[in-house]
Amino acid sequence: MAFSNAVTLGKSLADFGVAFRSGMITSFDVTRAMLDRIAALEPKLQSFTFVDEKNALKHAAAIDALWASGHDLGPLMGVPIAVKDIFSIDGMLTQVGSRLPLDDLVPPQGAFITSLQKAGCILLGKTVVTEFCLGGINLTHPMPWNPCDLTTPRMTGGSSHGSAVAMAAELAGFTVGGDTGGSVRWPAALCGVTGYKSSVSQWGLSGVFPLSPHFDSVGIFTSSAFDAALVEAALRQVPIRKPPLAREMRLAISTNHFMENLDADVADCFSQAIKHLRKAGAQFVEIPMVEASEIDEVFARIVPADLISFLGRDRLRTNWQLLDPVVASRIEKAFDMSIDEYAQLVARKKVLEQLMAERFKGIDAFLSPTVPVVPKPIADFTTVEQASAWNKLATQNTRPANLFNQCAISLPIHHLGSALPVGLQLCATAGSDEMLLATARTVQDILGVS
Amino acid sequence: MAFSNAVTLGKSLADFGVAFRSGMITSFDVTRAMLDRIAALEPKLQSFTFVDEKNALKHAAAIDALWASGHDLGPLMGVPIAVKDIFSIDGMLTQVGSRLPLDDLVPPQGAFITSLQKAGCILLGKTVVTEFCLGGINLTHPMPWNPCDLTTPRMTGGSSHGSAVAMAAELAGFTVGGDTGGSVRWPAALCGVTGYKSSVSQWGLSGVFPLSPHFDSVGIFTSSAFDAALVEAALRQVPIRKPPLAREMRLAISTNHFMENLDADVADCFSQAIKHLRKAGAQFVEIPMVEASEIDEVFARIVPADLISFLGRDRLRTNWQLLDPVVASRIEKAFDMSIDEYAQLVARKKVLEQLMAERFKGIDAFLSPTVPVVPKPIADFTTVEQASAWNKLATQNTRPANLFNQCAISLPIHHLGSALPVGLQLCATAGSDEMLLATARTVQDILGVS
Repeated sequence: MAFSNAVTLGKSLADFGVAFRSGMITSFDVTRAMLDRIAALEPKLQSFTFVDEKNALKHAAAIDALWASGHDLGPLMGVPIAVKDIFSIDGMLTQVGSRLPLDDLVPPQGAFITSLQKAGCILLGKTVVTEFCLGGINLTHPMPWNPCDLTTPRMTGGSSHGSAVAMAAELAGFTVGGDTGGSVRWPAALCGVTGYKSSVSQWGLSGVFPLSPHFDSVGIFTSSAFDAALVEAALRQVPIRKPPLAREMRLAISTNHFMENLDADVADCFSQAIKHLRKAGAQFVEIPMVEASEIDEVFARIVPADLISFLGRDRLRTNWQLLDPVVASRIEKAFDMSIDEYAQLVARKKVLEQLMAERFKGIDAFLSPTVPVVPKPIADFTTVEQASAWNKLATQNTRPANLFNQCAISLPIHHLGSALPVGLQLCATAGSDEMLLATARTVQDILGVS
Repeated sequence: MAFSNAVTLGKSLADFGVAFRSGMITSFDVTRAMLDRIAALEPKLQSFTFVDEKNALKHAAAIDALWASGHDLGPLMGVPIAVKDIFSIDGMLTQVGSRLPLDDLVPPQGAFITSLQKAGCILLGKTVVTEFCLGGINLTHPMPWNPCDLTTPRMTGGSSHGSAVAMAAELAGFTVGGDTGGSVRWPAALCGVTGYKSSVSQWGLSGVFPLSPHFDSVGIFTSSAFDAALVEAALRQVPIRKPPLAREMRLAISTNHFMENLDADVADCFSQAIKHLRKAGAQFVEIPMVEASEIDEVFARIVPADLISFLGRDRLRTNWQLLDPVVASRIEKAFDMSIDEYAQLVARKKVLEQLMAERFKGIDAFLSPTVPVVPKPIADFTTVEQASAWNKLATQNTRPANLFNQCAISLPIHHLGSALPVGLQLCATAGSDEMLLATARTVQDILGVS
């Protein structure tokens, strides 16, 4: 980590759980320490839109009292967390990174946030997001600071970059994001943390401000694959699945699409990772993934059309000047799409989902670099064209999992050969989240944690 | 059965399997017997569009030789089947019940048909379907005869009515259909056979002429729930799942939506069924199902829009006079739908899918009458308005499963108190097909087979 660690939650959420249950630490203490850390670092990081100090401390004290009275809410009890500002939370505003009036569209709090509260998590506040989650950079909104480089402001990826930065700077036990085209995995990779994008069926989308119902999913940022598995299992109230042995893992790679446009450091870290996994005994197959290139045709055209239909054309036209220009440019292109074109694109997505479910049979995870490039200096991207090109390039490898309706995770692997963060992506068939996370744990055990 | 049974496949596909493996019967003999039966009954039934006598016999003889040479393709080896004319089969035309030119739209043969061939099934031919699978009756196409009444032509339901009639008349070991809004369960209920609509993820839709990619699914007609389970397990190459004990079954019913417009005989058979299941020890809960009423808003408007986008507006306009008037009337209403309206309806469907997946947790099956009414005389429906009203009423209870992305099955239960066929519908959450079929077996064991 780039910041000094006066107080932390321990190396893993499991460590915190042990300390909390032994009485060595209280939720109030940890919450207080996180709030102090936020106060100290936020002037530079700018990863939060809102910090709810008063209620967080009150809640933490109540959770400590609940524990003292003999009630255990499970492994997440007392853990302070931060949530991307697309999730409705009772008592907090939802702005989705936008200056547009949206109050009438914000849904009531949904099942995922409620399940976190029931598990005893402390909500520290909400984190920064690009406008409507469209891409990783806005030109007219302040961007959070990527903790990987304290001198040069670098790309964080997006759209859940507030949650990624908050996790990288250890401002919470874990943080929550949403992933429509890589919005969890991409900033996880560029900020050097673990980012898990769940299957849509895993946690649902109630209470989440939508970008596209065809691609949206919930995700989390953690300090390890183990912590992601812990959160997933805790919320389902089941034990954590045992990770497979290295030689039991059936992994896939492809020369199609995912190896294009790689920075030398990314290519190097990825090939090192594959080498280590092979050496550990993992089984590898090579599969065709030519359909991934349909992201530009299918994904890129459905998403803005969905946003237009949700926001409404009148609202957009009336408030056009309030939109960030990168976002406006992307929405504008979809204004004249016909219903037939849209229906055909959605139909094609359905075909691709089935095709990939078939192709992924017998495969635990498909591996690729999460992002083809390392985090670039923000100063290099000042025009709409540059920002749009960056968004397209940087999500080249993450959008396919949304297109194919898969679950996925990004693990930091820059310690294998890069000064700047690099992510290793594992994608698996929809609904196999438990297996994906177990596989990711074994992969991370073999490769080490950055 | 209403027809005399000179030669049959036995009471179950399992019986045929035993006879085939013991050498008591050959696939050629059974195929020959089925073809003779088709030749004798088809002048009245009109359930086939095409019978491939020559190739079926040739294939059956080859399958017998394969068996004799020591190769076993599994439980479906040598079973003659018939397939709804929406599935592409190499060497057969695909017309989808339409007079429109469609050759450019017919897909290549897909995975489901290929898996049936690999399992050793003999394709007897293709069965009649309403035009584009839109509803259960066309006014300008001949309708197949419902074997439940040999004097009065009665409604068969649709759109897979050729396959339902062929199964009811025992012209095949099992038959294949497709289900977008009840197109398997509805004709199964009205023809008095078992009809299973799979989850979309179960068999995919490659090689199937689409009606709506949001609702389409594959299904089969069998003489029992056991046979449906046998086919499902055989195609997945796994053993058949053990059926639950009666007292292990967690069943749900609802007073919302599904109890509306019931004929007295249907209401009576259904309440008898529930009574018998309760007595046998099944656990029942009552759940709200108010969202089922959104079929008219969401389902009914998406489906014709999808058909328009697939067929193309030019093709429809040029050939408008060739459309059956019931179909034309339904398509016409969707011609002016906007992309925003369509996208919002599809988004609503996604919300409903997640809502129902949540609500169905801990429930093995939701029970309702399959169709609220018994098969009516066809002569009572002579206008577009009457035919449209019939389609809407008769699919009241089947469309919700497609809207909620579920799997479902209809079991014949008219022996509990009706002279005309009545179906009991079991719906379960997407992907739980194995559990649904196991539950259906226990339910059928308790209620008996019609």
